Amino acid sequence: MKVLVLNSGSSSVKYQVIDTAAGDPLVVGLVERIGAGGALLSQTRSVDGDRVRSSAPILDHRDAIRAILDLIADPEHGVVDRFDEIGAVGHRVVHGGERFVESVRIDDAVVEEIRESIALAPLHNPHNLAGILAARSRLPDVPQVAVFDTAFHAGMPPHAYHYAVPYVLYRRYRIRRYGFHGTSHQHVGQRVAALLDRDPADLRTISIHLGNGASACAIDGGRSVDTSMGFTPLEGLVMGTRSGDLDAAVILHVMGREELGVADATSLLNKHSGLQGLSGISSDMRDLLEEESEGSERARLALDVYCYRVRKYIGAYAAAMGGVDAIGFTGGVGQNSAEIRARCLEGLTFLGVELDADANAALSGGAEGFFHRGAVAVAAIRTGEELVIALEAERLSDVDPASLPD
Amino acid sequence: MKVLVLNSGSSSVKYQVIDTAAGDPLVVGLVERIGAGGALLSQTRSVDGDRVRSSAPILDHRDAIRAILDLIADPEHGVVDRFDEIGAVGHRVVHGGERFVESVRIDDAVVEEIRESIALAPLHNPHNLAGILAARSRLPDVPQVAVFDTAFHAGMPPHAYHYAVPYVLYRRYRIRRYGFHGTSHQHVGQRVAALLDRDPADLRTISIHLGNGASACAIDGGRSVDTSMGFTPLEGLVMGTRSGDLDAAVILHVMGREELGVADATSLLNKHSGLQGLSGISSDMRDLLEEESEGSERARLALDVYCYRVRKYIGAYAAAMGGVDAIGFTGGVGQNSAEIRARCLEGLTFLGVELDADANAALSGGAEGFFHRGAVAVAAIRTGEELVIALEAERLSDVDPASLPD
Repeated sequence: MKVLVLNSGSSSVKYQVIDTAAGDPLVVGLVERIGAGGALLSQTRSVDGDRVRSSAPILDHRDAIRAILDLIADPEHGVVDRFDEIGAVGHRVVHGGERFVESVRIDDAVVEEIRESIALAPLHNPHNLAGILAARSRLPDVPQVAVFDTAFHAGMPPHAYHYAVPYVLYRRYRIRRYGFHGTSHQHVGQRVAALLDRDPADLRTISIHLGNGASACAIDGGRSVDTSMGFTPLEGLVMGTRSGDLDAAVILHVMGREELGVADATSLLNKHSGLQGLSGISSDMRDLLEEESEGSERARLALDVYCYRVRKYIGAYAAAMGGVDAIGFTGGVGQNSAEIRARCLEGLTFLGVELDADANAALSGGAEGFFHRGAVAVAAIRTGEELVIALEAERLSDVDPASLPD
Repeated sequence: MKVLVLNSGSSSVKYQVIDTAAGDPLVVGLVERIGAGGALLSQTRSVDGDRVRSSAPILDHRDAIRAILDLIADPEHGVVDRFDEIGAVGHRVVHGGERFVESVRIDDAVVEEIRESIALAPLHNPHNLAGILAARSRLPDVPQVAVFDTAFHAGMPPHAYHYAVPYVLYRRYRIRRYGFHGTSHQHVGQRVAALLDRDPADLRTISIHLGNGASACAIDGGRSVDTSMGFTPLEGLVMGTRSGDLDAAVILHVMGREELGVADATSLLNKHSGLQGLSGISSDMRDLLEEESEGSERARLALDVYCYRVRKYIGAYAAAMGGVDAIGFTGGVGQNSAEIRARCLEGLTFLGVELDADANAALSGGAEGFFHRGAVAVAAIRTGEELVIALEAERLSDVDPASLPD
């Protein structure tokens, strides 16, 4: 089946058309600067590398979806002749709250429930929803499926998802750890097991997604039992512009000192912290590695904090699972930077983590495979979020929405 | 030398007179409800168990120090005949900032610097300072020494103490991890090494202080290399009424929903969270264990979160040090609750942590010793904060304040 996968952000929509039989994208594209006068469209076709880039006035997600559909059905650059070749649309939705513990075929009731969850994820869900509404309007006869970043973590045990705050905050506002990057972690867990030819039920895997966002996940027997992102994607590992773990008193102190409101403080921690804030240079790992090699102390500090945080989570999740059998790196950085992988894993021989430096270096170009000598299998895994979304969309495309349980 | 050790809080002063040669307190006492009409005084003398309890109007720390001096020199209940028997006064000071990386003989300049550090620790340092001023006024000829909760952690590497927030916040407000409970962790590291008859330089020890406050510390070669409390004592383990680790976005979300200001939010996380907030029952471990045994699900949840958090820190700090040789529990809970110790250590056999259940149970009454079968030594250690403060005060009592480096 050909599935259109949509990842709708505040001012961008990323998309792929995936042939689920082959498991590969037919086309990968991006619309950015939505709302600005000159939005940018770019698309690359897999079969022949055909690339198209253009600029157009795109004012909202409806315009963006129309432009995407035009491009994927374009006689010269496209991959479908007619829209009824698209068997399903799969939407990434960041926050499923406690309601959505698995992917779901979208109907009006689901739309309403995603709308109700906006309070939990005001930075993400409104845009995901805008994409859903636009796609339903443009492709009313194509089954649409929502795949939640939180769903893979829905089975975490209570001791992993509760914060030690007044219980009434859980009752009243559903404040708890949800975790994100779920489709990516799920894919890493499955892929590591497949590459090892082992049953996921017998493996304790730590999945480490290092991209612009970053999170770690403890996968015990194929199930997420803990993850580093929390109530929001702010918590956990150091990210491009997010702080990750932080004494909550820090932000309260800064709010008092600088007379910041809640919105400013949220922006400070989500958009101006992380690698960017600590280094003062860039949120991009490649920039920082280059600056460090040229002697920048601040770049070195940011990278040291970043890698040390990953190392501590590996130790913590080994403790959470009573040991670890495999570690999988994914995401742009995790997949492509052999140096960052190696630095994250320093000093872990006591866990049975020992690297094969040559094999690690050979996995620098986005290739997939193992690079370990020790008892713990260590792999670089290609990011699989879109594929998981496509497969989920296919699986649910013939489910009658009305048959869903409440 | 007889040293008066003072721990001055907002409405209480805890004190001991310690004979440093013997290493034991001659007398242990407490003044509470300072500022209220009827403050309470209680004191126990070690040699004969003599106890005194009384009530008096004590309006400030000066009154409290006067009452304490009266009690320790009391002909019937006291332990000194004249105040010149007191060779030094040791003050616990919570926050030494980046200025105080070790204990210091107090002079006017030190008083000023502690006053300047109040912005970093507005909940603690003003009261510590009030105690210092009162004691200097009452005992002007006795050397006074400040011992900082943060000092043992002053040598942490930058990758452990920097948060991934804009670097300017470190420059401007000295926002970083400081860590607390330093005198306690230092004592645990030294005591574990002594009991093992090993050189601290050769040991990687995880110290776990579980009292009303709680923190963990990674001690590598006798030096603190990481600790769970951060910029303030809020971060890290679950405590009696403090949340410990938390997605910082949680408190921002709650502030928005409930229209809370910074002071209310600080109070929510420091005084109404932790075991108290999550259980809704009590901040006291004994109450929770009893409620759990009677079937309370909420007590069980709070204890599960509490112990799971300790377990994850043990894994994280083992990763930070490249392994672990010894674990020491201290603090009221860590020293006295065999059950909590055992639950914190569940599932860590992969690290070489295996308990001797009988030996653990035998260490329930505040006794000190080991309770392990595995390669990692595991001990209960008597809390030694006051003794460390007394020894530091003795060590610095003949230092000329004017000779201190700037």
